[in-house]
Order: sequence, then structure tokens, then C-alpha cells
Amino acid sequence: MAQKPSLPQGTRDFGPLTVQRRKYLLQTIESVFKKYGFMPLETPSMEQLSTLTGKYGDEGDQLLFKILNSGDYLKKLIEHQEKGIGHEEIDKTYLPSFNNTISQLDSKISLPFIAEKGLRYDLTVPFARYVVMNRNDITLPFKRYQMQPVWRADKPQKGRYREFWQCDADVIGSNGLLNEAELLKMYDEVFTALQIPVVIKINNRKLLSALATHIAAANKFVGITVAIDKLDKIGTSGVKTALENIGLNQPQVEQILQFLSLVDAENPLQELELMLGHLDEGKLGCTELKEVFNYLSILTPHNSIKIDVTLARGLSYYTGAIVEVQALRGSLKSSIGGGGRYDNLTGIFGLPGISGVGISFGLDRMYDVMEELQLFPSNLKANETKILFCYFDEVTQARAISLCAQLRNHQIAAEAYPDITKKIGKQLEYANKLTIDYACIVGSDELEKEKYVIKNLQSGEQSELSIAEIIQLLNHE
Amino acid sequence: MAQKPSLPQGTRDFGPLTVQRRKYLLQTIESVFKKYGFMPLETPSMEQLSTLTGKYGDEGDQLLFKILNSGDYLKKLIEHQEKGIGHEEIDKTYLPSFNNTISQLDSKISLPFIAEKGLRYDLTVPFARYVVMNRNDITLPFKRYQMQPVWRADKPQKGRYREFWQCDADVIGSNGLLNEAELLKMYDEVFTALQIPVVIKINNRKLLSALATHIAAANKFVGITVAIDKLDKIGTSGVKTALENIGLNQPQVEQILQFLSLVDAENPLQELELMLGHLDEGKLGCTELKEVFNYLSILTPHNSIKIDVTLARGLSYYTGAIVEVQALRGSLKSSIGGGGRYDNLTGIFGLPGISGVGISFGLDRMYDVMEELQLFPSNLKANETKILFCYFDEVTQARAISLCAQLRNHQIAAEAYPDITKKIGKQLEYANKLTIDYACIVGSDELEKEKYVIKNLQSGEQSELSIAEIIQLLNHE
Repeated sequence: MAQKPSLPQGTRDFGPLTVQRRKYLLQTIESVFKKYGFMPLETPSMEQLSTLTGKYGDEGDQLLFKILNSGDYLKKLIEHQEKGIGHEEIDKTYLPSFNNTISQLDSKISLPFIAEKGLRYDLTVPFARYVVMNRNDITLPFKRYQMQPVWRADKPQKGRYREFWQCDADVIGSNGLLNEAELLKMYDEVFTALQIPVVIKINNRKLLSALATHIAAANKFVGITVAIDKLDKIGTSGVKTALENIGLNQPQVEQILQFLSLVDAENPLQELELMLGHLDEGKLGCTELKEVFNYLSILTPHNSIKIDVTLARGLSYYTGAIVEVQALRGSLKSSIGGGGRYDNLTGIFGLPGISGVGISFGLDRMYDVMEELQLFPSNLKANETKILFCYFDEVTQARAISLCAQLRNHQIAAEAYPDITKKIGKQLEYANKLTIDYACIVGSDELEKEKYVIKNLQSGEQSELSIAEIIQLLNHE
Repeated sequence: MAQKPSLPQGTRDFGPLTVQRRKYLLQTIESVFKKYGFMPLETPSMEQLSTLTGKYGDEGDQLLFKILNSGDYLKKLIEHQEKGIGHEEIDKTYLPSFNNTISQLDSKISLPFIAEKGLRYDLTVPFARYVVMNRNDITLPFKRYQMQPVWRADKPQKGRYREFWQCDADVIGSNGLLNEAELLKMYDEVFTALQIPVVIKINNRKLLSALATHIAAANKFVGITVAIDKLDKIGTSGVKTALENIGLNQPQVEQILQFLSLVDAENPLQELELMLGHLDEGKLGCTELKEVFNYLSILTPHNSIKIDVTLARGLSYYTGAIVEVQALRGSLKSSIGGGGRYDNLTGIFGLPGISGVGISFGLDRMYDVMEELQLFPSNLKANETKILFCYFDEVTQARAISLCAQLRNHQIAAEAYPDITKKIGKQLEYANKLTIDYACIVGSDELEKEKYVIKNLQSGEQSELSIAEIIQLLNHE
């Protein structure tokens, strides 16, 4: 019985034109990565769950796609229930109690017994894992780029897919703020090349940390950043409520709102120094921002790179600069890129004291913006075929194949229609539907003359050419 | 507590040099695909399990990586056990009996309740699924290529990984045997370009089918192909035993062995016609092979393309030509490519009557062969950086950054060392370890002169150049 096929929720097929356009984005990003000295890395789609869990917060753990153990995946669970033994590496806190009825099975508690692998959730944690595992072979500073899909079991919505691509560039093992400036400039170059109008925002986590100290709520730092991070979505009043909910009093909340209002200040750095300069972290945050802008004055970006004190970033591992990119036109409100400096990401895998900084491009969101704003070059087509050879019978087919082969020997993409059919109209329709540039009909007349009528399928123009002339024409297209 | 990270069995990280080499392979293959008029397609890593299961035989179903349902993945199983209800789409044959103890849980029976998605096992089935789902938008014949990873929970061994890449080209909706010939020629072009010495084998399933009829064992056709397919691994005596095991008698087995001995015939087509030409399928198989070689005589491949009657191919969906590529040098015994014609692959998804033919390149095995035979071009490096600018302090750093920016404006990959350090030796060591071509030390002297000493790090040669001269030098590298 035939089944009606479908795709898993939040995943997509990419047809020929879409792939070509995605390649155009990838190549634009990659060429900038290379120009700045970054080297490619690829990590497996699957990681040990122990590598992934606990790195993205509770919410992130929920969103990991987990892979069933191969073979008899329930074996370990059943064995544990029967004999009280489990997999030796399983975190002891997860040991289920010995309930032997299925109705008492708990998904969270059972997980370590039936799934040990998960799909990559981002490119940063696998990169940290790679650095730790290859510490003896890596030259520091290590500048790597990575362009691969990641998977999150998130509720699909505008700009959010369950399989999507990230394009990351990170420098690890260097404290120089030149890295921050260069990464910002790389954002600038990519978005300039793609003609996506953007604002590139920068802030520094040290300022947020100083703010927490300043209002005597250093212990609530994470809660404060989480609340500020939602400003875009829930507005000032929402942030106010969120801050109250984590237990801040009225004066504390007021001071945070005052800090956030600096987003509109003409000279935010000056105001920040006034407000937080008396604290070491506040002073350092300002100095770092200033130094980044000093470097940028040499690098002269085209796009606006501006300090945004309301930028907080979701991830907890950032410790210095944080950056985010937003499109200035189009309906997408969420960011199309983000990053920052993290001082101890490899520490969780046993290699402390290595600082890193990186940026990420959200390929799929960039694609959506490009499509909405009609920014893809019009010469990007589903195929790159220059010419289709049409023919009538076995004899003319042989010539068509031979001509086609000669063009291919000159690296020209060419096709001979694959089936013998008397219907030239059908063959030309194929060429038209695929927007192939030229068609050539090989008839019995042409066999002897060795001149062929070439038709430009867009303009309708025709000319009679030898194979040498066809090669010359198509080579210069 | 720091955890010692590891990789899932059968998966690998690809460091910079490996990625560059893999890209070289991918680009070589892709350029041939494009030249022959194929268009790119990408499908999601995940498919519905209902799309994947039953397409690769029982063994294939075992090797699928299954993804746990999101959230409370045990919910459906527990609900079913408690109330006798399950997910409505679940195949009714899988309904477990109402045992309520964990020890009686069965992995196979429970599966439909806790996993509904699986990782892509090959690129052919997702392609068939895509064609069926997009039948109204696709122009036939449809020539698509697809280069993506696939996943199989196979026991890792030489040349076999759990995550590996396939590079497929298929033509669907065309019966012309020109397709078979062009696909063989594409194999030829790729392996010629990569300098991998290969033999490209071709056979026709119709001959194997005729053979089964000939020995009055048409009902044992699948078993016969499965046995013949193992010839490489188990030898003639092994095949003999396998054939006996599926119930063939001595004369039948002898006739199959006689057929297999034609592998060494000088003119196998002639012998095949003598043996099987009295049967329609036998005659057709010979005619098709002859026609493919007729087309090949126009396309003139470099590599040997030879008829191999012992070629059977594992997959059951092939109905006409079958092909396989083997490296002639190196220790890898398994094939590095394979394909064939299938007449009804889209039928399982409700679109019958569309014939297709395709080939696949095994990227990872090709990589292993290239590495063993040292065939990678020596100019492939981990990075493409042409020059590193070294400096002493803030002032010379500013100049270094500016010089670097000027080179990048000319699309030259360049780096300024990211940290201020007095140790020039450390900076040069970095350049040497990364095999960067040139280094330039910017000192206070250079600031005024505006001439810079450029050192070729391989030859040791030095020259004093202006920025314009540096750009010229590196642009012509």
C-alpha cells in the first residue's frame, strides 16, 4: 500500500534554486572567514549526551534531540529494573527507583539507560570539546570556522527551524581585543557584501556584572541578564515585572531601568563610566569597549556598530564582549547573528584558563531576510547548464552527444536531451522550464554542414555556428 | 567536576587540513555533476521513520538511527499500556500486548510509541520522497545531485563509519540508456581528475533475473542476488554454500557458477547471449549493455569500464543496469561507488511508473584511498593565509592592522598576530606552525620608511617592499 510521505515538523527540503542561494550565502561568509585567517573544522552530527547536557541551561537540555541506543535499546533499563544494575557511566543521580510497572516509568529518569547520544545543538560546545581532545596538536591562538547544521526540538515558528545552519568563527587562546574588532568587521563585510542592512550591537557582560554589584544584587546576576535579554519581546514593563519576580526591590529595579535607558544616550560610554566606573568591573567593561572601538577606527567598517546597553545574550558562558546583529528591514525581529567572549568554556572539559571569542551567522534567518527583501542576485539559477542539444533520431543523437562532450571537455555545462523522441517541442519545453540559456537542434542538414543553429532562449536570437564558435560563445557567457 | 570528553563510536572530527581535502573531493565531484546538467537538492537529516523503514531490508531497519520523541517520550507508551490507546498513526501490527511490567517491555514493539523520526540512511529514498511530494513542480526528466551525510548504526571497521557522506547523481523520468552511459562517464571523469586508479564495473539485473528463470528458480531471485553479491567476501565456495542454503539443487548451483565464470570471458556479451538469449529478459539485458557501450564509444572514457557478471549489488530496488567502482590500488577492498537503474522507487510513495538511474560516490572511502596513495595535491593546506604581520607594541600594531586591512581589501587572506607581545619569535613560530607563506615584522623603522621586510617562510628569502608591492607579490602567488 502506498504511503503518503511527509517531513518531520520544522524541517525542510531545499530544491535546486534554494540550494544555489544557500551556497551563495555560505560562500560569501566563508570567503570572509578565510580572508581573516580562520581555518575550517567539522565535528560529527552526534555527540555524547554527556558532552551536551548541562551546557545550554535546563531549557536547552529539553531541546536536545536524543538518539535511541542501537539494537535492544530497552535492555539496560530493564536490566537495571530487574537486577539493580545500570550502565556504569550513568550519572548516579539519575538512578530510578525500583518500580517495576510501566505506568511508573519516568522519561527523565529512564533517559540515561536508553539514549547516550544527541544531535549537535550548536557549534561552540563541540568546538570546545574538540580543542580539549586535541590540545596537544593545536597551535594557539586557534582561529577556526565551522559551517554546519544544528538541531533543536523547539516549537517551529517564523525564523525558527528544528534543523538549521550556523556559521561560526571563533578565536581561542588569545586575549587581544583586536579579535573582537576583527570579528565585528567580519560581520560588517559579510552583510555589506550581501546588501542586508543591519545594525551590529555590542555590549560587555562586565558592565552587566558591575550593574548587579552596584545595586547590591551580585547574586542575582544571571536572573538580571535573563530578564534584560527579553526586553525586545516583553518591553520595559515586562522586564520590570521579571526583575521584581526574581526578588529585586523598587530602587534596584529603578536603577536597572535607568541603566537600560542609556541605550538612547548620545555618548553611552561616558554615561556608563559615570554610573559604574567606581567598580573594577565597570571600569574594565568601559575600557574594553573603548579599545574595541579604537581598533575599529583602523578597520573602518561600513555598517553601524553601536553600543547597546540593553544587549544581554541568553547564554551564560559569556564573560566579556557580547554582540548581536539585527536586520534593519524586513519582518524578522529576531537577530541574524550573535556572539561574544567566553573565558572558560573549555574548563568544563578539563582545560581551564583558555579564553575565546566568537561570532555566529544564522544562515536560515539570513536566507529568509534576503528572500523577503529580494536581495539574491538575479543570475542565481537552479542549474548552471548553458545549452541543451535537441535531436530527432539515433543518427542525429550521436552527433548531439558528441557536440555535448566537446563542450564539457571545455568545462562548459551542457546537456543532450536524454531520450530519443521525435517531439522537438518537448525538448525545447524542457530547456525553457529549466531556464537553460541556449538550445541547439541537430538535424540531418547540420550533420554534413557541421554548422549548427544556436538559439538564445531568452532573446530568441539565432545564429549558425561551428562547434569552435559555440565553444567561444559559451566560454564568454 | 571536569569530564573527559569523547566522541560517539564510528564518528570523527575533521580538522582543518582534513576539511580542505574533503572540500577538494567534493568540489571535484560537484563540478562534474554540474557539467552534466545536474541540479542540487538537499533534504533534512531527519525523516519520518515511516519513510525509512521497509526500504533497506530487515538489516537496514536495524541500522537506522532513531530519534526519541521530544518531551515526555514515554507518554504514549504508558498511555497505551494503561488505556489501550496509542498514537493513531502507529502501525497496528506493532500494538504491544497489555503487559504492565517493565521487564516485559520489548524494544521492537515499543519503538513506534517512543520514536517517530530517524536519521537519513541514504540519499535515494529521501530523493524519491521529495519527487513524490513535489511532483507538480518538477520538470521531468529531473537530474539532481545531492551531497550530504548519512548515518548507519553499523559496526565500525575499515572504510565503514557511522556518519559518512554520499554524493549522488540521479536522473528520474527518463528511460534513455544515454543516462547510464553519461553516469559511467561521470565516474570516469571524477576518478581521472583525482588520479585514483579504478575499474568501473557494469552488469544488468535483467541478466540475473533471466539466469534465475533459466535454472527454473525465478522465485529465488532475491536469494540468488544476495548470495552472488557476497562473492568478493566469501569466495566461490561460500557462494556455493549460500546457494545450497536457499534450496538450490546441484545442477542449478553448477549453472550459476558457470554464469559467474563468464567474468573472465574475453567477450562476455557473446557468451551471455548464448546462455540467456533465448529468454526475453536475457536478450534485453544484453541489448541494454550493448547500447550503453555504444554510447560510451562516443563519450570515450579514460578508465576501464567492463562488464562484470558477478556484480549483483545489495539493494533490491535495482531493475536494469547496476554499476560499482573499485580502486585498483590501496588496501581498501570494498567499493568506492555504486548505483544502477530502478524502475519503481517512487511507487512505494504513491507515484508509480517513473524510472530512474543513479550513481553514488562514497566520499569517506575515496578520502581513505587518496590518503593511503598520497594523491592529495601538496598545495592543499590547513589554511589559505598568505601572510602574518608581526609587531612589537601598540604603535607598530596599529600599522600592522592597517597593512593587513589593505591586503584583505584586495581579497588576500592575511593576519595580524592577535595579541601584543614583545616576543617576535613566538609570532613567527605561529606562522611557521600554520605554514603561512610569508611573515612581515613591522618595527618602528618601518613606520617612517613605509617599506617592509617580507620574509618567505619556506625559502627564507627576504625583500623590502612597499604595501603596493606586497599586494602585487601576494596577488600573483
